[in-house]
Amino acid sequence: MECEYFDKVKDYGSCLAESRYWLILLAPDQRNLGTCVVALKRDETSLSGLNDPEWLDFSKIVEDLESALRTAFPVTMFNWGCLLNSGYKKDPPDAHLHWHLIPRYKKPVKFADYVFKDLCFGKSTMHDRSDFPSITDKVRREISDTIRMHLKYLNRKKV
Amino acid sequence: MECEYFDKVKDYGSCLAESRYWLILLAPDQRNLGTCVVALKRDETSLSGLNDPEWLDFSKIVEDLESALRTAFPVTMFNWGCLLNSGYKKDPPDAHLHWHLIPRYKKPVKFADYVFKDLCFGKSTMHDRSDFPSITDKVRREISDTIRMHLKYLNRKKV
Repeated sequence: MECEYFDKVKDYGSCLAESRYWLILLAPDQRNLGTCVVALKRDETSLSGLNDPEWLDFSKIVEDLESALRTAFPVTMFNWGCLLNSGYKKDPPDAHLHWHLIPRYKKPVKFADYVFKDLCFGKSTMHDRSDFPSITDKVRREISDTIRMHLKYLNRKKV
Repeated sequence: MECEYFDKVKDYGSCLAESRYWLILLAPDQRNLGTCVVALKRDETSLSGLNDPEWLDFSKIVEDLESALRTAFPVTMFNWGCLLNSGYKKDPPDAHLHWHLIPRYKKPVKFADYVFKDLCFGKSTMHDRSDFPSITDKVRREISDTIRMHLKYLNRKKV
């Protein structure tokens, strides 16, 4: 799938969908099944820089993604975060505005022969993401296809 | 300061300001100087439930708070998160929609004879909040007054 602006944010994951202002990526770390990144499709370093159409587009994505993930998987609740820490590891900083969406699961989830466990459920903020087991490309595609099937707002081309 | 809806969210901190739809609180944990909570002034458990006026009001608060905090303190950047984990520790869950705003500092900050250190700067997501040193009520008031002095959007009564 070809997505506008993808080259600038390809480290955040594989392309899942796009709206007019945002790109939705399936995160490399799938310990929490369905973990996504929502990245702005223009250069911007802070939330203060978003304009009203970008906020309202984002709000529709929140609704659509939460609904699709709840339909696809037995999600208990969601964490949303705009952290930007990794961009400030560099000097000078090189931040690009993006959101993390982490579905949280009270119980382990079986999907495509993997068991996904949310070891920090209810206990902590978003977990340490430095070390995570990989899944095959085939399973990654299955996760993307399953989420995509349930999207509504984001399935309308360039909403 | 009296704030609408405060009784329901008083565990999140002390009242700093309010807009039409949101209440801004100074968080109990001030390890990161100026840490705030932005709580919705009605019962709601997930981001999907916000309507357009509430999103746009929130976007103005993001701009106003980030600007006020940058003017008041030498903030390097900000973490924003809507996690809601603590509400799911309970069974049945008892979540109330709120955002964490954590200013992040590259260097230690001296304020009112305290030195505030951001030990996780650039390294991690929002830190473990279970154990933090307390500051006096007087210093808490000084932090609140300093932030309040620089608010614009939120200083207009019931914007």
